[in-house]
Amino acid sequence: MVDELVLQVEDVGTLVDGINTVWVLTVTFLIFFMHAGFAMLESGQVRSKNVANQLTKNMLTWSVGILAFFLVGAGVSGIVGGLTGSGSYSLAGAFSHLTAEYTSFSGTSQWTSWLFGGVFAMTAATIVSGAVAGRAKLRAYVGYTVVLAALIYPVVTGFTWGGGMLTADGLIGSVIGAGFKDFAGGMIVHAVGGIAGLTAAWVLGPRIDRYNSDGSVNVIPGHSLTFAVLGTLILAFGWYGFNVGTAATPLASGEGGIALGSFSIVGLVALNTTLGMAAGGVGAAALALYMNGKVDTLYVANGMLAGLVSVTGIVDDVIWPGALALGLLAGAQLPIVFNFIQHKVKIDDVCAVFPVHGSAGVLGILAYPFIAVGGFSVSALVAQVVGVVVITVWTVAATAAVFGAFKAVGQARVSEEHEHEGLDISEHGVDTYPEFGGPETVSDGGGTTADNAFTDGGVNDD
Amino acid sequence: MVDELVLQVEDVGTLVDGINTVWVLTVTFLIFFMHAGFAMLESGQVRSKNVANQLTKNMLTWSVGILAFFLVGAGVSGIVGGLTGSGSYSLAGAFSHLTAEYTSFSGTSQWTSWLFGGVFAMTAATIVSGAVAGRAKLRAYVGYTVVLAALIYPVVTGFTWGGGMLTADGLIGSVIGAGFKDFAGGMIVHAVGGIAGLTAAWVLGPRIDRYNSDGSVNVIPGHSLTFAVLGTLILAFGWYGFNVGTAATPLASGEGGIALGSFSIVGLVALNTTLGMAAGGVGAAALALYMNGKVDTLYVANGMLAGLVSVTGIVDDVIWPGALALGLLAGAQLPIVFNFIQHKVKIDDVCAVFPVHGSAGVLGILAYPFIAVGGFSVSALVAQVVGVVVITVWTVAATAAVFGAFKAVGQARVSEEHEHEGLDISEHGVDTYPEFGGPETVSDGGGTTADNAFTDGGVNDD
Amino acid sequence: MVDELVLQVEDVGTLVDGINTVWVLTVTFLIFFMHAGFAMLESGQVRSKNVANQLTKNMLTWSVGILAFFLVGAGVSGIVGGLTGSGSYSLAGAFSHLTAEYTSFSGTSQWTSWLFGGVFAMTAATIVSGAVAGRAKLRAYVGYTVVLAALIYPVVTGFTWGGGMLTADGLIGSVIGAGFKDFAGGMIVHAVGGIAGLTAAWVLGPRIDRYNSDGSVNVIPGHSLTFAVLGTLILAFGWYGFNVGTAATPLASGEGGIALGSFSIVGLVALNTTLGMAAGGVGAAALALYMNGKVDTLYVANGMLAGLVSVTGIVDDVIWPGALALGLLAGAQLPIVFNFIQHKVKIDDVCAVFPVHGSAGVLGILAYPFIAVGGFSVSALVAQVVGVVVITVWTVAATAAVFGAFKAVGQARVSEEHEHEGLDISEHGVDTYPEFGGPETVSDGGGTTADNAFTDGGVNDD
Repeated sequence: MVDELVLQVEDVGTLVDGINTVWVLTVTFLIFFMHAGFAMLESGQVRSKNVANQLTKNMLTWSVGILAFFLVGAGVSGIVGGLTGSGSYSLAGAFSHLTAEYTSFSGTSQWTSWLFGGVFAMTAATIVSGAVAGRAKLRAYVGYTVVLAALIYPVVTGFTWGGGMLTADGLIGSVIGAGFKDFAGGMIVHAVGGIAGLTAAWVLGPRIDRYNSDGSVNVIPGHSLTFAVLGTLILAFGWYGFNVGTAATPLASGEGGIALGSFSIVGLVALNTTLGMAAGGVGAAALALYMNGKVDTLYVANGMLAGLVSVTGIVDDVIWPGALALGLLAGAQLPIVFNFIQHKVKIDDVCAVFPVHGSAGVLGILAYPFIAVGGFSVSALVAQVVGVVVITVWTVAATAAVFGAFKAVGQARVSEEHEHEGLDISEHGVDTYPEFGGPETVSDGGGTTADNAFTDGGVNDD
Repeated sequence: MVDELVLQVEDVGTLVDGINTVWVLTVTFLIFFMHAGFAMLESGQVRSKNVANQLTKNMLTWSVGILAFFLVGAGVSGIVGGLTGSGSYSLAGAFSHLTAEYTSFSGTSQWTSWLFGGVFAMTAATIVSGAVAGRAKLRAYVGYTVVLAALIYPVVTGFTWGGGMLTADGLIGSVIGAGFKDFAGGMIVHAVGGIAGLTAAWVLGPRIDRYNSDGSVNVIPGHSLTFAVLGTLILAFGWYGFNVGTAATPLASGEGGIALGSFSIVGLVALNTTLGMAAGGVGAAALALYMNGKVDTLYVANGMLAGLVSVTGIVDDVIWPGALALGLLAGAQLPIVFNFIQHKVKIDDVCAVFPVHGSAGVLGILAYPFIAVGGFSVSALVAQVVGVVVITVWTVAATAAVFGAFKAVGQARVSEEHEHEGLDISEHGVDTYPEFGGPETVSDGGGTTADNAFTDGGVNDD
Repeated sequence: MVDELVLQVEDVGTLVDGINTVWVLTVTFLIFFMHAGFAMLESGQVRSKNVANQLTKNMLTWSVGILAFFLVGAGVSGIVGGLTGSGSYSLAGAFSHLTAEYTSFSGTSQWTSWLFGGVFAMTAATIVSGAVAGRAKLRAYVGYTVVLAALIYPVVTGFTWGGGMLTADGLIGSVIGAGFKDFAGGMIVHAVGGIAGLTAAWVLGPRIDRYNSDGSVNVIPGHSLTFAVLGTLILAFGWYGFNVGTAATPLASGEGGIALGSFSIVGLVALNTTLGMAAGGVGAAALALYMNGKVDTLYVANGMLAGLVSVTGIVDDVIWPGALALGLLAGAQLPIVFNFIQHKVKIDDVCAVFPVHGSAGVLGILAYPFIAVGGFSVSALVAQVVGVVVITVWTVAATAAVFGAFKAVGQARVSEEHEHEGLDISEHGVDTYPEFGGPETVSDGGGTTADNAFTDGGVNDD
């Protein structure tokens, strides 16, 4: 029959490439959209006088950070992976995305993969901005973002996803006899962000009036729970891209035909992501009810996120009752860890990024061996503990060094006067809500209306 | 030639599974995002003193509801479908998603399908929160959500999509000689939500000061049209997933080769969804202009949604001029039905969920036989009417029973004092906008600033 | 073996149709979501007394515009393409989407394509609303939208994407020896919107108090930077659909097997879109810092958008260092062009739509020959210049004619009293934020609380 078609192996490869690329691009866009979620979540949790600062930091995280990751970071990851893993190291190979061919699928494939990696990198970066809200200088934050995107995060991915020392064949992993397990970045992305944020907040010191001279704590409420919850739900939406999308290759092809790629476990990933999120909300609500007799809105929101973080690293390989229990724990630890940091450690982590992204991420990574589909294994537990330690030490050290350097030259935080006035005016010359609010509302100085607020997109240079 | 590839039937099945799963996951995520839409739409339509309550209800609807649907509801649907349809009933089969294998595609397939069903279930659940805003106790609402997700909604899907009595082969459908037509849930999801909401609002009674002693009505304006319209547009975005995504199997495969699955009609679904939405906005705008001489913003927003609801049930099988006309009618009925409920029935349906989701959904379901692609049929009309009656009776009875039970033990609505103060403080201990607004702005008591507003993610336990 | 499957050419065609349709629908939904972005971006940039007006305009742009584009515009595009191109002209062919068959894939295919075109058309339409904010009558704006969707925009697409005179085979293109290059609508969509907006703002005249009698400028700040930035990030998300989705046919099939369709360049598109956006934000931030010593939040936001606009037309065929440089330029030109329009030309382009969508779009189109993957060509440069001139002349003339006609009959802008009072009350009878803000905050009259604000979805007709 003339219409019969004899497919070649190459045809089927092209077909699978097309399908896989549809999927990976779709989830990449979803993950990118998490920046809107972080921007809203963080803006809602800061004073109205610091909102534009938070928004600007989020936009510059992406704008500056993704360029740094393209030009430097992605290559650093490849080099670190090669140097510390079982593979070899090639400068040209690590930076091949800068020299890919324009007219072959090789270019398309490399750039698609790079962007998929880039949206994960920028997620780690943007988490930090929530911890340092209300007092970090813009130049310090942006400077740190460049280092994070070009070096700190790439070293972590080099150690792990990039084939480096924490993998089963790497310098450390081969000794342990097991690789570090982190499916979608519970540690690599979220805990790195949360730990970096806590470190940065510690170096910067708390906001003025956050602690009284007797050590007691003042609550500085955020200006809009609505924006905070909107941000939470945008993040939850994007997280389906983040987790489920990490099952990034729906299909595989070869001479033997067509097989499922990572879609063989995609249903489990979707299920565990859903259960982790829901249980996180329930766990946090329950603990808030137990502690205060009321269901705090922001705890529920952050609880959903903590639940999501907790399962992110292991969502493809744990039994669903395990994901459910883990989510409950991650939600319940949120108020406890938040209070511990606030009252005992006395670090001013404004948007609670450590309890949400840090401790919840570590919790999930360490829980893995106990709820893995394949059952418990000592070497897996050792690999997880060692991985957490290595990544934590590196993240704390590098972050403290960068913010410490800015601090040493007096560029880490704004002046006391500017902090009182609000960073929107001092750092950006704008008033976020020129028609609402006013200076008398809150105790720490309030927002004054800027005389030259350039908020209409223009400059008043008369 | 060595590169020729002989595909097996199984290869092509895998290929089609992969493609279909890419699609169904993508639309599932879009439908999930509708929760952000509902949260914003409803929050914008309530007083600023009740915003956090509305946000919390929306988050807990998902968190609590999806767990109830996973553990109980999805199984109930299967049982009801089997018991009242032509099929057989198996407890193990109905709950097989709880025992699916982790390492086979069977698990992935079941969990993906379950989640796809779950996001529809949660849409029905969340609609109710808009009707009972401003006075329902959190425990009553959450308790009802559990029952809705575990029983009320699953019974409805059991009767219909689950193969039960309203299908062509079911107990009722086989007598009529036609099955109940509801493509994406115009009745099963939206009207169930709208009718349940109206019922709950009726049991609860109106907000304080909503009606004067002479029976006249006070308008209690929502606090932010911007959030309401944002929610509308997020919902419209997610609705493309809801409707177009219900064409859930792009391709089909078999020994005969590859055929289009539900994508054979996906263009019609996308077109009719678009025309219904647009015409709904135009219809509501036109009627508002006719009634008041002005184009009310919230009518346009809710009109777009009513237009979407109206076509949801039948969007795959009606001629496009029919969808256009139906959308216009659905938009135009909105102000009329809203006023009828408000002034004559005197039920305080805060966010107009009945005119938007209830009457508009029923309208579309009943319009089906008149605008079907295949032409009019009496049996189809009978099936639609009977389906609407059965589902309405069940939804009203079950909802009235649950809220009636809470009312009987004094747990259905908050105290008069708490209602005046606002549910944000009494139920959640937070102030949504601590820097804005004030007690003097509006007549029904206003929002007082909480002394211990725990809005920074933490607890002030000093 | 019994399981071997002999595929027909038709099978593979169906397969590729299914995959391509999954992709094109997904990106269509993303592009639709840009309406939420525009609604938030523009609402945030207007006074609180004009927010509901801006929201309503955005919703009606879609509701009215898409109907006009379906019933008239799409057909006009086909006719213009046929009349001025190398092809032939058929009335039935141009309007075939109105008469497509319901039960064949032909219908699905046509309607999917139509909707994909429709979301681009509506993007052009909605841009205009940002320029005319705060004083245009609703009837004038909606009337203009109908003309834009039915005629102005379709003529432009007819000249270009529809195969008309600016293509290589068209009346003009064949003389030049090259076609006008605009991949995803940098000129055809964005610059048309930006130029139309500037023209409309010019015809309408500036808002009251925008300019003093001595010609100096008053800044009228928008009411919420948070909504403006949220809108920016939603737009950026949707833009991945807009640009990357214009690589609309992942795969191609034929008797020769399966080949990559536009996915052969999709990685480059994704990369250049990302670099353009990021560089735009950096460029605008840098210039703001240079000019004012501070990093204006709205400049960063609009800079990201200007960067996106600049690469939109050429993103599939320029080297990445070119896209990076172009984004920087597009961001940097934003403050300069904005100030030039504001201070020298004295047109009150409220949301800066010309510098963001107009000049940035033209910049990218004209830069194309200099950074094209294939190198410089004079004929390409001529084609770009001629295309910009033709489209600009048509857009300015048609827009001036329509708004001029409304102006001639006194229906173009609201009365001075209504402008002071705010368009929310005069045009829509609503108060966007009845609990916040107040009349004393800003100098140009402030928003008074509406006595009969129908903001709860209902009508107070007592």
